[in-house]
Amino acid sequence: MTKINRKTGDNNPMLLFEDAFLQVKNEIEKALTGSPLIIREYLSHLTLSQGKYIRAFSVLTASLNADRMVADDAVKAAAAIEVLHLASLVHDDIIDDSELRRGSITLQKQYGKKTAVICGDYLLSLALRMLSGINEKEDYKSLRFPDYVGRLCLGELNQHINNHNLDLSLYTYLKIISGKTAALFEAAFFAGAVTGKKTEKEVESYKKIGHCIGMIFQLSDDCLDFDTTMLEAQKPVQSDYDNGVITLPLIHALHNDVSFKSHAQKGNLTRKEVDEAVRKSDGLGFTRIMINRYYSKAMKAIKMLSIENNAVAEVIALLDKAARFDQKKKA
Amino acid sequence: MTKINRKTGDNNPMLLFEDAFLQVKNEIEKALTGSPLIIREYLSHLTLSQGKYIRAFSVLTASLNADRMVADDAVKAAAAIEVLHLASLVHDDIIDDSELRRGSITLQKQYGKKTAVICGDYLLSLALRMLSGINEKEDYKSLRFPDYVGRLCLGELNQHINNHNLDLSLYTYLKIISGKTAALFEAAFFAGAVTGKKTEKEVESYKKIGHCIGMIFQLSDDCLDFDTTMLEAQKPVQSDYDNGVITLPLIHALHNDVSFKSHAQKGNLTRKEVDEAVRKSDGLGFTRIMINRYYSKAMKAIKMLSIENNAVAEVIALLDKAARFDQKKKA
Repeated sequence: MTKINRKTGDNNPMLLFEDAFLQVKNEIEKALTGSPLIIREYLSHLTLSQGKYIRAFSVLTASLNADRMVADDAVKAAAAIEVLHLASLVHDDIIDDSELRRGSITLQKQYGKKTAVICGDYLLSLALRMLSGINEKEDYKSLRFPDYVGRLCLGELNQHINNHNLDLSLYTYLKIISGKTAALFEAAFFAGAVTGKKTEKEVESYKKIGHCIGMIFQLSDDCLDFDTTMLEAQKPVQSDYDNGVITLPLIHALHNDVSFKSHAQKGNLTRKEVDEAVRKSDGLGFTRIMINRYYSKAMKAIKMLSIENNAVAEVIALLDKAARFDQKKKA
Repeated sequence: MTKINRKTGDNNPMLLFEDAFLQVKNEIEKALTGSPLIIREYLSHLTLSQGKYIRAFSVLTASLNADRMVADDAVKAAAAIEVLHLASLVHDDIIDDSELRRGSITLQKQYGKKTAVICGDYLLSLALRMLSGINEKEDYKSLRFPDYVGRLCLGELNQHINNHNLDLSLYTYLKIISGKTAALFEAAFFAGAVTGKKTEKEVESYKKIGHCIGMIFQLSDDCLDFDTTMLEAQKPVQSDYDNGVITLPLIHALHNDVSFKSHAQKGNLTRKEVDEAVRKSDGLGFTRIMINRYYSKAMKAIKMLSIENNAVAEVIALLDKAARFDQKKKA
């Protein structure tokens, strides 16, 4: 198997990981604040509540070469994927009627749903434009960005349809989060591997790793929704249930406690009742079992990466980060 | 100047215009009804209210070669642009709270705004995926699809911001419709010219023609909103004003009739008052003067097309169609 080593050049220069990560942040900032005046106010609102850039981090990690460097195209793809993620959050907040996101007031709450529809659309077009700026033209199309956007939408739709559905199965739930969260992580790892000129076999492994990390990320988020305080999660605790979104810990409780389910079917549960049922059935324990499964799957895919790939440790660190294993240690 | 003649081949076969147009319709139908089960119901809803495919027609017309044939890539671009247009309508109906579109109930009215947000996003991703299916890879990126989507969004936003704005200037109004309507017509003519392998100079002319036809199309629509019955327009008469959208005939009346404007500023006008003011100031006449300006501009650009371009007559016919000059003759 041949590994294509990208040459450093004016066309697509190589950068150190840390510099690349800073440049991603700059590119996003520049794209948001450099947009036409008419939309700038709304987009600036979003720069105040920037996240941890874990998807951008994923792109760069999957793109690392033996010298811990990444190509400029990985920076462009990383910035584009973060802006796409931002677009999805803006529309997501409309769908969930969310008032807060990362501790800040949402765009839809501040400026209204109609403005938020347009701003989300604009952000999506911005992400596409940023992606189209990548230097190696043949990579642009092969990243299959529109496919991932489509999968993201289907996940969102499936979740919306299953709002308040107490009969939601584990299978459907995994399908939902595979779209709404894991698709973008897969896209990130895929983009990293492609811009990093990995072999075809490695690209496939990276896609699998991205999918698993996305699933783990969401399942950990589901747990977080139950077991942290508002301050830690930077969003109201149990907002999922309040929004009618049924997540795995509760699915497990509904499945294992017949009397709880029949009680739930009669009407609105109190938060205390939900907490109690999840605790009694060990819904968080079950969710963590699922997390471990995806963790093992990811490790299996990581082992398929070539031995000379020095980024393996970074990928594992990212995996741990998604699973919040670092937080658990602290607790 | 050399004109590149595309070869007929398995990779990107040539089709007769009429066959190509049928194929565009088939591709759209296939894309909508062949989508995943979960979204099919909502998208099928849209197939019931298909429009006249004037944007697809534009792509194919701009793509015509000397033998009145177009390449398969023009079909793909045409279908993608129609689906993009559909996506914009779905979100547009959310923003305008529209209940009817082309005589059918809108998606947002039937299934709710939240579902419509996701369906519009999905349609946008579908359009991008359809476009990425074009055979000549280098054309895919050069069509600058994301730029046009961005311009469309800015036009929509600008319109939304200026809802009920009685001080709306002619300049801002033209800027709004240049985004919300003309951008997609320009994209259509651009895509046609690129996939039709026109010379660079011809591509520029086609872009100008597309822009002018888009402006004419919207300005004619503005007139139609005032001077036809509900049955003819297939939408409620004067829905623009009812939705707070101020169009050129009314802008002209507000600008020319100071007492009408100060009356309007005091509160909601009745439909009769709006009609009367537009009639008195000849708002429709003024709008038709603007239409004629864009018509002349388009004719100037058409004259720049090479003499051996046999599609000139078709482009002029399309221009007349946009200006509804055929309808005026009938009236």
